Amino acid sequence: MSDPIDFYFDFGSPYGYFASLRIDELAAKHGRTVTWHPVLLGAIFKVTGMKPNLEQPLRGEYLTQDVGRIARLTGAPFTFPDSAPANGVAASRAFYWLADEHPEQAKLLARAIYHAHFGEGQDIGPADTVAEIAAKTLGSLGIDRAAVTAAIQDPAVKDRLRSEVDDAVERGVFGSPFFIVDGEPFWGWDRLDMVDRWLATGGW
Amino acid sequence: MSDPIDFYFDFGSPYGYFASLRIDELAAKHGRTVTWHPVLLGAIFKVTGMKPNLEQPLRGEYLTQDVGRIARLTGAPFTFPDSAPANGVAASRAFYWLADEHPEQAKLLARAIYHAHFGEGQDIGPADTVAEIAAKTLGSLGIDRAAVTAAIQDPAVKDRLRSEVDDAVERGVFGSPFFIVDGEPFWGWDRLDMVDRWLATGGW
Repeated sequence: MSDPIDFYFDFGSPYGYFASLRIDELAAKHGRTVTWHPVLLGAIFKVTGMKPNLEQPLRGEYLTQDVGRIARLTGAPFTFPDSAPANGVAASRAFYWLADEHPEQAKLLARAIYHAHFGEGQDIGPADTVAEIAAKTLGSLGIDRAAVTAAIQDPAVKDRLRSEVDDAVERGVFGSPFFIVDGEPFWGWDRLDMVDRWLATGGW
Repeated sequence: MSDPIDFYFDFGSPYGYFASLRIDELAAKHGRTVTWHPVLLGAIFKVTGMKPNLEQPLRGEYLTQDVGRIARLTGAPFTFPDSAPANGVAASRAFYWLADEHPEQAKLLARAIYHAHFGEGQDIGPADTVAEIAAKTLGSLGIDRAAVTAAIQDPAVKDRLRSEVDDAVERGVFGSPFFIVDGEPFWGWDRLDMVDRWLATGGW
C-alpha cells in the first residue's frame, strides 16, 4: 500500500491549482508520496464530449465566483487570469522533460507555473513564458531558457505528453484535479477530504 | 439573514438525493429553514449544453462508483436504479401541486420519492408510481391516488413546474443539488460543508 498517489491536473484548471497546494502535504501525513501528471483537458474532452467549464452558460459564471471563494477560504494566492483557460501544452511538455530524471525539479517547475498563472494571473500558454519561469525557478540547477525552449519542441517530449494523456484516459481520468489512490479514483478539489479519509482508513 | 435556504434538485440526481438527507438538519443547526425546488436537469441542460453525467464516457462510470462510495460513507440507504437517469416530471409536478398549501407534505412526498428511487432502486418516472408513493406517504392526510394522478395532468401544475425551472435558470442553477444561501450559490453535494461554514460565519 505504499504506491505513490497519482495526481492528474491541467495547468489551466484552477481547481487543479488549489489541489496542487495541498496534495503533497496531505499524502505525507499518511506516509505517502505523490506523482504529478499534467494532462490536457482539451484532448480528454474530445473523448468525453465535455466542454471547458468556463465556456458553459451559467456554470462559467459560477466557476469564477466559486474559485474566488475557495481562494479566500484557503488563503491561496489568487488572481483570475484574463487568459483563462490557458493552453497547458508548453508547460506540460516542460514538466515531462524533467519528470523522469529530476522529478523534484519537475514538481518545483509545476508549482512555479501554477503560481504564475493562478497566483499572479500571468498567461502561461506561450513557450517563452514557460521557459522564463523555468529559468527563474531552476536556473541555479543549470536549467536555462534555451534548453527549455528546445525541450518544448522535442518530438520525444511531445510524444511523452501525448502518451501521458492517453494513459490518463485509459485510467478513467476525465477532469482536473483527479486522484488515483491505490486504484480508487477521486475527481475534484472537493474530494480532497475524502482522499484524506481514504488514506487514513484504507477505504470503505 | 433569516430567509430560507433554496435547495434545487432533480429527482433523477443521486447527489441531490444525498443532499436531501442532510440539508434540513444542516440548516436547522443555524436556525434556518429550507425551501425545496425540484427542477428538470433535462430542460436546464438545453440552456447550458451539458449532458447527463451518466451519458458521458468515463464520467458515467466514475459516477456509479462515486455514489456507492458516498452511500457507504454516509450510511444512506442506496440501490443504484436500473432506470437511471429517471424522468422527474411526474414527481416534480406532484411536489408543486402540494408545495404552496402544504409545504411539509410536499417535502415528505419528495423524501419518499427519493427513497423509493435511490434507497430502493424503483423507477419513479411513471405517474402511477408517483401516485402510489404519494397515497402511501400522505394517505392519512387525505391524499389519494386519483387526486395525485389528476394533479400531474393539471395544466396549472404543469405551468408551475415550467416556471420553477425557468426561475432556477434565471438564478443560475445549472446542476443538482444546487443551494442558494443569502444570494450565494453553491453547486454540489460536496459543497455542503462549505454551506455549513458559510452559515456559521456569514460568509467570507
